[in-house]
Amino acid sequence: MPNEGSYEAALRRSDEVHADLEVNSGAYTMLTGDRPTGRLHLGHYFGTLVDRVRLQALGVHANIVIADYQVITDRDTTEHIRDNVYNMVVDYLACGIDPDRTLVFTHSAVPELNQLMLPFLSLVTESEMERNPTVKAEQEASGHALTGLLLTYPVHQACDILFCKGNVVPVGRDQLPHVEITSKIARRFNERYAPVFPEVTGLLTSTPLLPGLDGRKMSKSYGNAISLCMTADETARLIKKSKTDSERNITFDPEGRPGVAALLTTAGICTGREPAEIAAEIGMGGSGQLKRYVTEVVNDYFAPIRERRRRYEQDMDYVRDVLTEGNARARRIAAATLDEVRDAMGMTY
Amino acid sequence: MPNEGSYEAALRRSDEVHADLEVNSGAYTMLTGDRPTGRLHLGHYFGTLVDRVRLQALGVHANIVIADYQVITDRDTTEHIRDNVYNMVVDYLACGIDPDRTLVFTHSAVPELNQLMLPFLSLVTESEMERNPTVKAEQEASGHALTGLLLTYPVHQACDILFCKGNVVPVGRDQLPHVEITSKIARRFNERYAPVFPEVTGLLTSTPLLPGLDGRKMSKSYGNAISLCMTADETARLIKKSKTDSERNITFDPEGRPGVAALLTTAGICTGREPAEIAAEIGMGGSGQLKRYVTEVVNDYFAPIRERRRRYEQDMDYVRDVLTEGNARARRIAAATLDEVRDAMGMTY
Repeated sequence: MPNEGSYEAALRRSDEVHADLEVNSGAYTMLTGDRPTGRLHLGHYFGTLVDRVRLQALGVHANIVIADYQVITDRDTTEHIRDNVYNMVVDYLACGIDPDRTLVFTHSAVPELNQLMLPFLSLVTESEMERNPTVKAEQEASGHALTGLLLTYPVHQACDILFCKGNVVPVGRDQLPHVEITSKIARRFNERYAPVFPEVTGLLTSTPLLPGLDGRKMSKSYGNAISLCMTADETARLIKKSKTDSERNITFDPEGRPGVAALLTTAGICTGREPAEIAAEIGMGGSGQLKRYVTEVVNDYFAPIRERRRRYEQDMDYVRDVLTEGNARARRIAAATLDEVRDAMGMTY
Repeated sequence: MPNEGSYEAALRRSDEVHADLEVNSGAYTMLTGDRPTGRLHLGHYFGTLVDRVRLQALGVHANIVIADYQVITDRDTTEHIRDNVYNMVVDYLACGIDPDRTLVFTHSAVPELNQLMLPFLSLVTESEMERNPTVKAEQEASGHALTGLLLTYPVHQACDILFCKGNVVPVGRDQLPHVEITSKIARRFNERYAPVFPEVTGLLTSTPLLPGLDGRKMSKSYGNAISLCMTADETARLIKKSKTDSERNITFDPEGRPGVAALLTTAGICTGREPAEIAAEIGMGGSGQLKRYVTEVVNDYFAPIRERRRRYEQDMDYVRDVLTEGNARARRIAAATLDEVRDAMGMTY
């Protein structure tokens, strides 16, 4: 994590760009993405998808990478990957990502993007990669020896961002170091060879992280995440069995009552209401009434999204076409950038 | 460098394959290559080019990568790279490499080969890459921090070898660890996903290294190398100013008289004679007579090669075509292999 001073600078820069985006959206190219390890859930939705749709609507050049190679940075299998990828496209479409305005593609389908790894790897040192906090954290979490793919993760990210000349990347504070190493690679390339790549700004989001139903980090593996693809009944069952506490009176106390607070926060984000206000309203209704309320507002909010999701699921030919066309377009963009890189390096024969 | 036991095993395996190559050449695919950092010289010629032409004549599927990205593993510039690459193709053609039988291509022109980096990096650990002796040696020689590109050098080499399903790689003993890491990557991929890659054998060469004219390692930077592209006069001048010693009687004593011995070895390799026999013949003729003899036999040997070289230099359109067609063919081969890799990993959308 960057120190306070550089965080302040990043935040100022992010605020400037946030403001400029509203009036000058065409000058910005955004790159975001997801690892296709499972279904998208409410955390993804409120944490990033809403913002992606907003930037798309503003007219920013939007790009989403489905980072399939990142699945094997810390695991030995690609089981279910095709299924996960298609479902991710379905989730995107259901949430309002418009493939005519946002480029959706898979990492493994764009060799010209991946080739950027080689020149970019020459611009960073082993210790710069090792210092990256995500590399460190994921390696510790994996419990295995550091693979070459995880070590070079900051460099693939730079390739993903720079192949389309992305200049804005929505990030949480903990991801700022990725933006920094990408900027470093872009700057070093430009200085050493020729000005090909833009300056990259991390767009810091102000949305607080939505907790899982038990108050912990939302994660499929904790069983505390409401997936977009769940039915209303599945959602009701998951909320019903979520852990609250024995105190009848509902109050909003994230520290002392994480389960109750998570339910209130979830209801709050779906209704635009303050969690404390909802708590006061339910009061002695207890957690049963709270859970019924949360179930109702979540299911109401996601009903149209889930309805669209079902329609796309029944039209997988269209979903495949979206990805096929996205991948073809990504290749054209990547090939043009790679040509510029080769030109700059004198590698044209 | 591998320990004695594994060296003996590698040597036995290499001898078996050397013998089998003579009768079963179509079962072998060879990959070799050069870094385009300058002109090829007599060390390259007798060390590898003669053998490549021999394997080509045997009917082995031969592939030569001009490893242009490897130029920036340990330096910050790609200056003169286009010129070096074209001259390398001219050198190959002049030496008898036939582009109809041997695929010649540049590393940077084949994105589908380079994409193999990503799955392959997931199959090795950081410490396996760090342990590679070439990585260590080149990093120490460069005097800089270890770049990501130099660290991952064993993995690019694996991509170069495996994209065309190379199963034999001519190597010196010190390069056996590269073959080992490539075999490891192939084996791990096959076990984890599906059997896509062959077993790779290092073909150990029995040719001793030709020393530079001063007895040191032959290197353009030492000024002790006769390049294939030199004229007969340039060759004569370089040999004339080479350092011998004050003893008139010519004897073959590599330890005590490195300069004289290097000249005798050079004459020996060009004539097929024993250096000691040449020494005895010249005897009290001294180093002047020795140098005239070396000049004559080198220039005689290389006259037809240099003549062909001049013809190709005057037909650079043809040279460019050779590379353009080689690169296109390498891309077709790499795309087919990458498709198999994607299939095996389930990354087909």
